[in-house]
Amino acid sequence: MSHILILGGDGYLGWPTAMYFSQRGYDVTVVDNYFRRNACTELDVGMLYPVPTLVERAKIWHELTGKEIKVVIGDLTDPEIMRAFFTGKVEYSWALDKKFTGIPETIIHYAEQPSAPYSLINYKYANITLINNLLVTNNLVFSLRDFSRDTHVIHVGTMGEYGTPNIDIEEGWIDIEHKGKKDKFLFPRQASSLYHTTKIMDTDLMWFGVRMWDLRITDLMQGPVYGIETEESKIDKRLNTIFNYDEIFGTIVNRFITQAIIGYPLTVYGKGGQTRGYLYIKDTLQCVHKATITPAKKHELRIFN
Amino acid sequence: MSHILILGGDGYLGWPTAMYFSQRGYDVTVVDNYFRRNACTELDVGMLYPVPTLVERAKIWHELTGKEIKVVIGDLTDPEIMRAFFTGKVEYSWALDKKFTGIPETIIHYAEQPSAPYSLINYKYANITLINNLLVTNNLVFSLRDFSRDTHVIHVGTMGEYGTPNIDIEEGWIDIEHKGKKDKFLFPRQASSLYHTTKIMDTDLMWFGVRMWDLRITDLMQGPVYGIETEESKIDKRLNTIFNYDEIFGTIVNRFITQAIIGYPLTVYGKGGQTRGYLYIKDTLQCVHKATITPAKKHELRIFN
Repeated sequence: MSHILILGGDGYLGWPTAMYFSQRGYDVTVVDNYFRRNACTELDVGMLYPVPTLVERAKIWHELTGKEIKVVIGDLTDPEIMRAFFTGKVEYSWALDKKFTGIPETIIHYAEQPSAPYSLINYKYANITLINNLLVTNNLVFSLRDFSRDTHVIHVGTMGEYGTPNIDIEEGWIDIEHKGKKDKFLFPRQASSLYHTTKIMDTDLMWFGVRMWDLRITDLMQGPVYGIETEESKIDKRLNTIFNYDEIFGTIVNRFITQAIIGYPLTVYGKGGQTRGYLYIKDTLQCVHKATITPAKKHELRIFN
Repeated sequence: MSHILILGGDGYLGWPTAMYFSQRGYDVTVVDNYFRRNACTELDVGMLYPVPTLVERAKIWHELTGKEIKVVIGDLTDPEIMRAFFTGKVEYSWALDKKFTGIPETIIHYAEQPSAPYSLINYKYANITLINNLLVTNNLVFSLRDFSRDTHVIHVGTMGEYGTPNIDIEEGWIDIEHKGKKDKFLFPRQASSLYHTTKIMDTDLMWFGVRMWDLRITDLMQGPVYGIETEESKIDKRLNTIFNYDEIFGTIVNRFITQAIIGYPLTVYGKGGQTRGYLYIKDTLQCVHKATITPAKKHELRIFN
């Protein structure tokens, strides 16, 4: 049975992903430090409805389906927490069977501070974003190097890494011909927030790990995801994912829907003339599933827009 | 009188740079957390000769020349230490006149963990390198944003950021024509150590700050620097810069010279067939001086190889 480890398993995508794979018979382990919940409390931006803790949700999932999602509450910026998932020294906060499931075949890396506005509140939030996102990714890369170069990582990037260049955006890579010689490079990246810049740096780190140590990584460059319900959350509303509609963690479509329902004027972003690609949450899960069953090869940083 | 702040003022380049500008009549402030000295102690890699502390060297410099180099011992990964150089809340560890000199016109940013081997000793040293280099740079970028967008920063990059592409390396930037459209981008960067990767990320951060907040930054992409003596250190041998010849902090030419003098076989790097550009320490000081007197413009990330 294939074992999937989800970093950031309490998040907007993390929990639906955990249920999705659990439902399909995978062994699933989730880890989270409740960063998002704590940040919402600190910044006084409430979620739309209360959501049980990760441990509670795992218990509800088990009661309703008989399936086990193992839960670790811990901070992955601490390298020892990350490495425990490879050495077996992991301490489960909840599990039916506390025996180590083994090194995961697939790791889904969502454990990042995901908000551009948060990253620019001030220098302190900028540093939190920088440290969290880069340490988690670096701890992951070095754990793979040291313990399991065959494990496939699926990372969620963002189209925002590319910025708005004056040339067509390609799928991660570009062939450059220059003065009669040719080479293939990462497509140029220049973002418009500190958060997006940390995602560029994630790419720098992952591409380094792939080149040096033959890691295998898929980077899904997504647009903003929207929606609440998935097939698995329909079972019980307590299984719904966290849902933010505020100006810090609320993404645009979720925010618009909430505003529309309560009759509040829609927020205008910039001059209101931007066009972007948006992705429905069920489609995101399908993307991640497809990347799982057809993984990147060794020594491949595979990028999908 | 122009005021220069040197981040990493105790380092191999930091101290010679401080004396160079002090000698030429600039007001000079240096800051350092003794990272290099402490790392040498921890890793048991001794320097070639003992070097007085930064405070002692500033006192010696004052005794011999009558000039003042203000010293702060502090860790620039702490944003409050960085911001003090702009708000005036700085606490000098040594100064003749403890009154705040004012916001610097020029900041020379050397405050980085500079060793590729150090960054790859293991995951802990990788994290130290990542955190140190990125937090210092981010604290600098946000301080400039918040307090002084006119201050010119000179950062020392490295040719190693470019890696070894199959196209000619250009001076920082490249015009890409793609499917009938054109744009100018940072020259592709992909390095072969974690240290070099953090320098790529520095560039990501600085370019973000320049685009967003009209900062003015010069990035000097240097090869390894060699040599001990500068015009100013000749005055007294206690003013010599720190000199490493070990396998962690010793750079190649300094290491070869030391090995040659004691009759120890020269270390072979890789297959021994690499070619690289090396820079004499006095020439580095000249580069930095030239960049100081002809600064980058607002909204310019100026890159010299």
